[in-house]
Amino acid sequence: MEKKRLSFTIGDVRDMARRFSNWGRWGNEDELGTVNFITPEKTRAAAQRVRQGKVLSLAIDFDKNGPQSGFAGRMNPIHYMMQDGGDVVSGAQDWIPVLRYTDDAIIMPLQCATQWDSLAHIFFDGKMYNDRKPNLVSSNGAEKNSIVPLRDKIATRGVLLDVPKLKGKDWLEPGEAVYPEDLDGAAAMAKTSIERGDIVLVRTGQMAMCRKRGGWGDYAGTGDAPGLSLACAEWIYRKEIAGFATDTWGTEVLPNGTTEVFQPLHCVSLVHTGILIGEIFDLDALAADCARDGVYDFFFSAPPLPITGAVGSPINPQAIK
Amino acid sequence: MEKKRLSFTIGDVRDMARRFSNWGRWGNEDELGTVNFITPEKTRAAAQRVRQGKVLSLAIDFDKNGPQSGFAGRMNPIHYMMQDGGDVVSGAQDWIPVLRYTDDAIIMPLQCATQWDSLAHIFFDGKMYNDRKPNLVSSNGAEKNSIVPLRDKIATRGVLLDVPKLKGKDWLEPGEAVYPEDLDGAAAMAKTSIERGDIVLVRTGQMAMCRKRGGWGDYAGTGDAPGLSLACAEWIYRKEIAGFATDTWGTEVLPNGTTEVFQPLHCVSLVHTGILIGEIFDLDALAADCARDGVYDFFFSAPPLPITGAVGSPINPQAIK
Amino acid sequence: MEKKRLSFTIGDVRDMARRFSNWGRWGNEDELGTVNFITPEKTRAAAQRVRQGKVLSLAIDFDKNGPQSGFAGRMNPIHYMMQDGGDVVSGAQDWIPVLRYTDDAIIMPLQCATQWDSLAHIFFDGKMYNDRKPNLVSSNGAEKNSIVPLRDKIATRGVLLDVPKLKGKDWLEPGEAVYPEDLDGAAAMAKTSIERGDIVLVRTGQMAMCRKRGGWGDYAGTGDAPGLSLACAEWIYRKEIAGFATDTWGTEVLPNGTTEVFQPLHCVSLVHTGILIGEIFDLDALAADCARDGVYDFFFSAPPLPITGAVGSPINPQAIK
Amino acid sequence: MEKKRLSFTIGDVRDMARRFSNWGRWGNEDELGTVNFITPEKTRAAAQRVRQGKVLSLAIDFDKNGPQSGFAGRMNPIHYMMQDGGDVVSGAQDWIPVLRYTDDAIIMPLQCATQWDSLAHIFFDGKMYNDRKPNLVSSNGAEKNSIVPLRDKIATRGVLLDVPKLKGKDWLEPGEAVYPEDLDGAAAMAKTSIERGDIVLVRTGQMAMCRKRGGWGDYAGTGDAPGLSLACAEWIYRKEIAGFATDTWGTEVLPNGTTEVFQPLHCVSLVHTGILIGEIFDLDALAADCARDGVYDFFFSAPPLPITGAVGSPINPQAIK
Repeated sequence: MEKKRLSFTIGDVRDMARRFSNWGRWGNEDELGTVNFITPEKTRAAAQRVRQGKVLSLAIDFDKNGPQSGFAGRMNPIHYMMQDGGDVVSGAQDWIPVLRYTDDAIIMPLQCATQWDSLAHIFFDGKMYNDRKPNLVSSNGAEKNSIVPLRDKIATRGVLLDVPKLKGKDWLEPGEAVYPEDLDGAAAMAKTSIERGDIVLVRTGQMAMCRKRGGWGDYAGTGDAPGLSLACAEWIYRKEIAGFATDTWGTEVLPNGTTEVFQPLHCVSLVHTGILIGEIFDLDALAADCARDGVYDFFFSAPPLPITGAVGSPINPQAIK
Repeated sequence: MEKKRLSFTIGDVRDMARRFSNWGRWGNEDELGTVNFITPEKTRAAAQRVRQGKVLSLAIDFDKNGPQSGFAGRMNPIHYMMQDGGDVVSGAQDWIPVLRYTDDAIIMPLQCATQWDSLAHIFFDGKMYNDRKPNLVSSNGAEKNSIVPLRDKIATRGVLLDVPKLKGKDWLEPGEAVYPEDLDGAAAMAKTSIERGDIVLVRTGQMAMCRKRGGWGDYAGTGDAPGLSLACAEWIYRKEIAGFATDTWGTEVLPNGTTEVFQPLHCVSLVHTGILIGEIFDLDALAADCARDGVYDFFFSAPPLPITGAVGSPINPQAIK
Repeated sequence: MEKKRLSFTIGDVRDMARRFSNWGRWGNEDELGTVNFITPEKTRAAAQRVRQGKVLSLAIDFDKNGPQSGFAGRMNPIHYMMQDGGDVVSGAQDWIPVLRYTDDAIIMPLQCATQWDSLAHIFFDGKMYNDRKPNLVSSNGAEKNSIVPLRDKIATRGVLLDVPKLKGKDWLEPGEAVYPEDLDGAAAMAKTSIERGDIVLVRTGQMAMCRKRGGWGDYAGTGDAPGLSLACAEWIYRKEIAGFATDTWGTEVLPNGTTEVFQPLHCVSLVHTGILIGEIFDLDALAADCARDGVYDFFFSAPPLPITGAVGSPINPQAIK
Repeated sequence: MEKKRLSFTIGDVRDMARRFSNWGRWGNEDELGTVNFITPEKTRAAAQRVRQGKVLSLAIDFDKNGPQSGFAGRMNPIHYMMQDGGDVVSGAQDWIPVLRYTDDAIIMPLQCATQWDSLAHIFFDGKMYNDRKPNLVSSNGAEKNSIVPLRDKIATRGVLLDVPKLKGKDWLEPGEAVYPEDLDGAAAMAKTSIERGDIVLVRTGQMAMCRKRGGWGDYAGTGDAPGLSLACAEWIYRKEIAGFATDTWGTEVLPNGTTEVFQPLHCVSLVHTGILIGEIFDLDALAADCARDGVYDFFFSAPPLPITGAVGSPINPQAIK
């Protein structure tokens, strides 16, 4: 496997895309990609792992104080009240007999906080997963590869790989890459192994760094970031995992290790391997808990909202031990 | 227990509110209500029930064709593309090296589709759950009783009570009430029992009726509807369930059995018992599946989005057998 | 000129597009189209017509009770309060010394109520005004032909042509077309003439009909409607008017007089003549006023909001006599 | 009159509120305040002033690059495409015969860019203009004092007072106050006078400063700003102007000259005098034009959008010479 390789060309990316492709593997109509690895038996076995009945939420708060800065048009969620306690007392609801109520709404980019990318989120050389063309994603939404087919699929074994812990530090530095041997090392440290159909949660500690310094700063795509090297593409493909997620904005180390293509791991792994990618996962409490009890795998449930045509979904992932 | 009682006065409602109240039961600071019945042991045991690894989504599609008609300001979700396939081909993304992407956003009332009510959603006689005042819910959101404390709590045993099946019909008629004996009867028919900490899914068949007739019509609060009678308030309280949900807009039978107070069961059970209520659950596929395999209980995971200050949350509930 | 012609082929439309084209007339960089006819002298003379100091608003209310039904994704405006009187009294603003405030926001399609179309709103045979291609309008907005260049241009003479009054009826029936001779007849009845650079307000009475019957019904694009026949395209071109507006959803008579192309007058007059088109103007009070004082021309000011990249704008047009 | 007074107490503010109050002046039902000074004769005379036919837009661009930073929940406008050129070419509109189109929408606080405050925007000591209570502004909007009554009222004489020009500088410094003698001085310099019913545009140059330094910075309410001193309240009242506007976020000098009440001039002049206040007006091009031709007064048309219940409105004010 690729190791510690620092720079790549567009030719390398295209070569990896070809070698690590699952296009056609589950048929030409497939929209699930590696989520196909989550079989009923996988789900059943994962649920059996629940020993303590402890639930951890891996979502950040959805609110105006989130990480988004407006880059690429992504803002933080706007939550507004359609009816509130002021209306309860002011008489604005006197048309209703006795009962009073509050009601609210949200405006948000689907990928502004903790989220899944759908397989319609990324195109490489004019194609998305399973050889599909851009005209399948119009202003009316994605006709194929939307988040909707995953509505009942994301229930499997989760594994936390705590890379800064492996490296004996609080967090990886901005620009610090995670390599396949780091993933293997973190699994070994956790005394666990990565299995087909798992969802792998890779902690870089970037969110802990933001907490420590008291603000998101350039977390949301405009600054350097720790994250996966493109060198992980083969590991992701060979391990036959269902998906992975990180505590960063964009999964990949920034700068990317190539200037010829932005987010090359998305181009290879999401577009060609068909992997499920999660971003802006809050893994800090989970990491602390795993360090306490030594248990790094768990039942993992993170259902997307089935928003018709959506190319991503806000989620509140649950790690259940 | 109350049975088949058809009409109620505001005095009855206040009396029930007093008798079936959990205010203070878990302390003055409590914001969970009956979700406190979901203990780690409960979660653990529920997960152990997973035998087949089968997952069913109980959410309807989130889109413009949803049930909302604008009543009380609730519209269906508006999904819009911030970047789409047209931009991929038109050159609008040529500022990015090679990778192309799509991105999207949503505008929606938090209770427009499948959803949880938070304990800040309803006020009765000037108070919400645990003796809290309306000024705690301002235009800035709910300071107390928001949906956020439930972020890591909704993992428990779910039970489907298929009332139309019990009654030998396809659906309950608009205006047809569900009584405690119907709930007990449906449980008996399913050869199961209701236990402390369960989340009970009560199927009325109204959604099946809408499917049959080809449209939502007056489903969203403006027409008659099947649903729970206020007579169920004691059953809900005594059973010490964590929550319940239905396949209707508003849980309760409409008309309500009293003209003196709107949605009286919310006033008693949500405000005083502190029950978790889910609405617009799609229970049809689940009902068909339960009828097939005879298994009416399952692991149930339905995490809300932790939207700061929110009085409800869109969800994609998962029944896992 | 074309008169009373009832049906057209796509060939007719293409022929008219060629004959009534202003592409290149004001240079290849032009984004104003016929608004170029509004010269400073025209604006000056129009202002001089103000004799009474009477102002009439031609906008409908912007609110949830507007004409939109969701057709083509257009909804009515959603107005929400960010801060309201309840917050003033509840203490939610106690962080501010003494002053209290309210604040609000809106979500709306730019063409949901009284509005201008920009020249980027319509394409015919793959081109918009002045031979421009679709890739100039991406998800980021219109790079050319947006509403913005009109920000300081819409101040000219307005003329009301009250067609139902000419025909001795309260309103034109759905499906009833307005022909060039109707426009000429209405001008003659008003003892006025149409001049270069005018904005012509053509009243069909459809809004009065909706008021009479108590609802918008299928006003917004889904039903038959009175409106301009394609036969008016030459009149519009020859008169060298700056723009026109109607009290209908879509300007044109529906059905259109051809099934081969939807809204053919837009294809000819907006795309090729480069005309400014206004829709959903409330002309009823103005018509009553003109009937009273016999003055059918006035100073007309209807500035669009300069929304970057917008293909339309909500407006509150002012007729000042 | 008050001059150069630098600091005030809450007692001073209350005293001024009492002395400069127009509550009841136009009856208890009045919702127009000083806009009542715009009579038909005033409008007529103002229109007659148009000599050149030159139109200047005083609005900034409405887009994501606007001044808002999220302070007090105000964001910049979000413009999104419902249909765009990509859909024209991709086939997404092939359900329509031949014609193709684009369509768009906006999400924005009503006071995020160039705007009017309505008389329901500010409360002082529990009341808004004309002795009205907060319960008149619920989550459903303002029942009284909304922007709607102004829909056909804002057509009058405008006058530019260029204060930095008077002071021989490019702009007033952040924190620099404008006093009544500055207003009189700027009028004298312009060889004009302020008359009853005028709308007075007070330029501080802050927007020019932002342009020079290349960004909005803390313009939107979070930094020091030039602006009117509370000492201007009497001038505003005595002159019987219909309204005034500035090129700043909040009209008033920041810091305010008192820490006991925020934005005290709003408390006196908007709440008690009932004055129309405009903010974030772009006066730079107008100032340059006035300096060129020596003409500082003009016809002024700035109609609000009649958004039901709105406490402000985006506008594109037109100065027509």
